[in-house]
Amino acid sequence: MRAVVLRSHGGPEVLEIQDVEAPVPGNDDISVDVVATALNRADLLQRMGLYPNPFPDGVEIPGLEFSGTVRSVGAHVRRWKVGDPVMGIVSGGGYAQQLVLPERQAMRIPTGISVADAAAIPEVFITAWDALVVQGVLTSGRWALVHAGGSGVGTAAIQICKAIGARIVVTCSAGKVAACRALGADVVVDYGSQDFVAEVASATAGVGVDVVLDVIGGDYLERNIAALATKGRIIQVGVMAGKPVLFNVGALLGKRASIIGTVLRARPVEEKISISQRFASEVLPLFDAGVLQPVIDRRYQLDDIAAAHEYMASNGNTGKIVIDIAG
Amino acid sequence: MRAVVLRSHGGPEVLEIQDVEAPVPGNDDISVDVVATALNRADLLQRMGLYPNPFPDGVEIPGLEFSGTVRSVGAHVRRWKVGDPVMGIVSGGGYAQQLVLPERQAMRIPTGISVADAAAIPEVFITAWDALVVQGVLTSGRWALVHAGGSGVGTAAIQICKAIGARIVVTCSAGKVAACRALGADVVVDYGSQDFVAEVASATAGVGVDVVLDVIGGDYLERNIAALATKGRIIQVGVMAGKPVLFNVGALLGKRASIIGTVLRARPVEEKISISQRFASEVLPLFDAGVLQPVIDRRYQLDDIAAAHEYMASNGNTGKIVIDIAG
Repeated sequence: MRAVVLRSHGGPEVLEIQDVEAPVPGNDDISVDVVATALNRADLLQRMGLYPNPFPDGVEIPGLEFSGTVRSVGAHVRRWKVGDPVMGIVSGGGYAQQLVLPERQAMRIPTGISVADAAAIPEVFITAWDALVVQGVLTSGRWALVHAGGSGVGTAAIQICKAIGARIVVTCSAGKVAACRALGADVVVDYGSQDFVAEVASATAGVGVDVVLDVIGGDYLERNIAALATKGRIIQVGVMAGKPVLFNVGALLGKRASIIGTVLRARPVEEKISISQRFASEVLPLFDAGVLQPVIDRRYQLDDIAAAHEYMASNGNTGKIVIDIAG
Repeated sequence: MRAVVLRSHGGPEVLEIQDVEAPVPGNDDISVDVVATALNRADLLQRMGLYPNPFPDGVEIPGLEFSGTVRSVGAHVRRWKVGDPVMGIVSGGGYAQQLVLPERQAMRIPTGISVADAAAIPEVFITAWDALVVQGVLTSGRWALVHAGGSGVGTAAIQICKAIGARIVVTCSAGKVAACRALGADVVVDYGSQDFVAEVASATAGVGVDVVLDVIGGDYLERNIAALATKGRIIQVGVMAGKPVLFNVGALLGKRASIIGTVLRARPVEEKISISQRFASEVLPLFDAGVLQPVIDRRYQLDDIAAAHEYMASNGNTGKIVIDIAG
């Protein structure tokens, strides 16, 4: 099969397309003909050598999510049959014509979404929903603050907040303000000209937000705490501005605030299955109903994977960058 | 009634004993003849003016816990009658011959514990149990790391861990090692000569602890994270070494770790009632059974309150410093 293989680490030029052996499903696995995959920031870090190879005994193929159709099933598989459309998160291997995963880690594709578009769903919607709702315990009527509102995770977070009746403040660059508003964000803060702590105070009548979803880190930490309500939670899903800053952990005490570090990719297989199953049960019906929709900024062919990486690094996208592999 | 009143803030000399009006119970309150109160570190901070007066319309009387007997009951009170022995946490007012609290905030005194000794129970046992078990979700078989093992909270934490089948590493000064061992700590780390991160790694076969209960802060933060297992929780209940340090919040991501800031004193009355009721249900039976015991280092008369504060500031105590008010 054709796949993007990392033989070394570095810039986009190390993304080589090669013919490699297709993976073989075990008894409880399915093999998938991949129709599309999508980019995640972690892919850029993996390309630079900042993550271990997800396939320590094989070639290193990036790609954390996919959509496609079932190609073959293991001896014990009862949930899927050949030809079924599926999507899901994986630890790696999405940048390839075929991949293998446990049958229970795969999810159905929601009604009305094409297989090619479904690749834009799994990572960012699971990440945003897990951070805001599962770990952040965001409910109707409460406020969230989400940084990078125009990113894949940000555009998913805006839609999830509106779908569950929560209210949301997002930060973004000036060029993405209109898109964030169009998706339904209650308050959009242009971080280049506005102070999000002041805007949160204004929006919440001084109370603060219940949950912060942050991918920035660095000196956002202290300001995130300042934006929190009493007993508020910061869910830290990344640290793009990941420099150490002066911090006194006592800043959490007065508000009885908490910071929860989380990643999706490093979770063991049983937790990936568990969160996928719960997501399928609680969130896929909102896609069926048309309340949630994948947000796709741009599509690339697999041959143009290096250009796709360069585009993500430029921060120009609003929503997902999808890679078409077959179809 | 006689009470310690703060007319100004500063050293132990500002702790003046005066005759003041006794508080009057409302319909849902009880009035208590206080037999004993006990010191908490927050009392020293309050004396120095670092907390707001808990009685903004009246004189400032410190004291966050008490034991005594019911002196009178409000019109709606059904749970207690005059003469009943009670104990509990309060927002202030413990350093006095009488105090008033909502009837549901008071707790019974466990079987076999004298009223005078019961004052050593509420704050430290509720704090340690709330931090480790309620917020930290510590269970049987799991490991906790508790700093200041010889403190009131530390001695309570050791006993609670043993009572629920959890395992515990404590840190303390060399002079308190034997006392911590005698209380049942599995591993005692002399912070003057040993590295707690290395000792935790050794005790847990490299896995780390599930919960850290920390009152130190400062540069313990980074080391606490290093001592954590995957998905571990740091419960921050104070910051005695509360200086800002260089910190990258990204340090939480790899372990999917969390930091939860908490205080007991600043919680609203309904939360004080709620945690007291749950403590009475889940933890007082362990005192009845003799599994948990208050640890009292030294007793002072109310007239010697300044000396008691000086003693607490010296860090010489193992367990609680109790103030006898009547009896």
